Amino acid sequence: MNKLLIVGSVAFDAIETPFGKTDKILGGAAPYIGLSASFFNLQSAIVSVVGDDFPQEYLDLLTDRNIDISGLEVVKGGKTFFWSGLYHNDLNSRDTLATELNVLGDFQPKVPQNFKNADVVMLGNLHPLVQSSVLDQMETKPKLVVLDTMNFWMDCALAELLEVIKRIDVITINDEEARQLSGEYSLVKAAAIIQGMGPKYVVIKKGEHGALLFHNKEVFFAPALPLEEVFDPTGAGDTFAGGFAGFITQSENVSFENMKNAIIHGSNLASFCVEKFGTERMVDLEKKEVLSRLQQFKSLTQFDIEL
Amino acid sequence: MNKLLIVGSVAFDAIETPFGKTDKILGGAAPYIGLSASFFNLQSAIVSVVGDDFPQEYLDLLTDRNIDISGLEVVKGGKTFFWSGLYHNDLNSRDTLATELNVLGDFQPKVPQNFKNADVVMLGNLHPLVQSSVLDQMETKPKLVVLDTMNFWMDCALAELLEVIKRIDVITINDEEARQLSGEYSLVKAAAIIQGMGPKYVVIKKGEHGALLFHNKEVFFAPALPLEEVFDPTGAGDTFAGGFAGFITQSENVSFENMKNAIIHGSNLASFCVEKFGTERMVDLEKKEVLSRLQQFKSLTQFDIEL
Repeated sequence: MNKLLIVGSVAFDAIETPFGKTDKILGGAAPYIGLSASFFNLQSAIVSVVGDDFPQEYLDLLTDRNIDISGLEVVKGGKTFFWSGLYHNDLNSRDTLATELNVLGDFQPKVPQNFKNADVVMLGNLHPLVQSSVLDQMETKPKLVVLDTMNFWMDCALAELLEVIKRIDVITINDEEARQLSGEYSLVKAAAIIQGMGPKYVVIKKGEHGALLFHNKEVFFAPALPLEEVFDPTGAGDTFAGGFAGFITQSENVSFENMKNAIIHGSNLASFCVEKFGTERMVDLEKKEVLSRLQQFKSLTQFDIEL
Repeated sequence: MNKLLIVGSVAFDAIETPFGKTDKILGGAAPYIGLSASFFNLQSAIVSVVGDDFPQEYLDLLTDRNIDISGLEVVKGGKTFFWSGLYHNDLNSRDTLATELNVLGDFQPKVPQNFKNADVVMLGNLHPLVQSSVLDQMETKPKLVVLDTMNFWMDCALAELLEVIKRIDVITINDEEARQLSGEYSLVKAAAIIQGMGPKYVVIKKGEHGALLFHNKEVFFAPALPLEEVFDPTGAGDTFAGGFAGFITQSENVSFENMKNAIIHGSNLASFCVEKFGTERMVDLEKKEVLSRLQQFKSLTQFDIEL
């Protein structure tokens, strides 16, 4: 089985949407990525950090999905990263109510020895220096390195972000972030500029409006599945990235054509994530549901104009 | 050849975008629809009205595309409908600077005798009573009636709009209008409610984010082609509708499966419309360019996950 190495935050989230609010629940990029990737045939490991306030129940939830957590450091007396957000009525925008870095503040990632030869590395949203450090520790060159980041690092650590971006194959960011990073409003132009920064493949996530994959002059588009109700968008982007990286890891095929399939798998998994609060839906999701909804993506997008 | 009857405004538009501004140029729903539909093998006619200030050059431009203008009334001493708009920097929103109804104010449509048996009727954006009057004049039941409308009529003539909506097969509106008409934020729920008002098929246009086609529990999505630059979005929705109605007219197939193809054709033609000011690009567009870009739509959306 191929190996997927995942780095990203592990967090407590407190979320409020028009449909309700949660206490502190499992959150962070790495769990969403790991849960999503677990629907593929692969070995995965998470590199991250939590405090000793992090419940065994959440650790079990990850190991139950065969996610290796030997690289998940538990800091004695430390507090786990905490994020709290309030979504507006349209669920397309949110206010961050609290960000307490806690143990994430001076995190030094340690890649488990048996994942230093991972086939695919998924660098989830974290400080670019942490992302770089993970790449430094790899003993064999991964077949594919995927990086997700956000505007926060463009504001606070742009030089470090640009350094790590040079070293990756695929970047996944949202439309506003692509505009910020490139200085171009047109996403086509933005993607070309970002390709010039290093990554040969640029994935631009547009939330309910789907995702675009750019490579040289080629472009592919995956819609988001139109849903009756989006309950909580938290983690949808990470779930998308996890599905993308997970499928690539399983299939061992890093061609543009196969990335099209990977983007559809990512969109498919993300469409479940938003149906309940936090990771709830991803935890009770069954493989047969995943396969069945893939058929909906086919019906949604496939047409038969003969050319 | 099958017949497509088009009703809609014929106008002078004055447009300002971040890329420049125009004097009064050819505008209105009917010319955009007619030019777009002219890329298919069909007979078309426009029912509309202009003043005698309307230049022969614009009439020629329509007849050069084999569009029958015997139903285009020219009011002696009348002034043609005038619209002026200013697009904001993102081109997704605009301010209307002027709307002078002029001869459109008390327009009584007259369907040419040889189009009273049209196969497809495209009711472009106009007062719902004008749209109803066109349907009243049909001598045979069209295979398909498509209606485009806008929020203005929902605000000012909702009862009349709901009356004509009962009589049509396909409605094309944008996302905000679908929300206004249905009272539902979710487009899936909005489409279901609108289907309950009459039309079995609901097309929701999302501009640069593509278009959705709903029918019972089924849904199809056509992306907009990602473009380096959108120059002027004016008429894109009408061009989309014209491509949709034109392809259906040519193919004589009103199945949901064929409507998927029609939506792709509409999106394809609309992607050209926005490349220049007003109708300029649609006038110099060649059929081989249209076919070539259809291939891009295939590459953009088709994937090969085996299920």
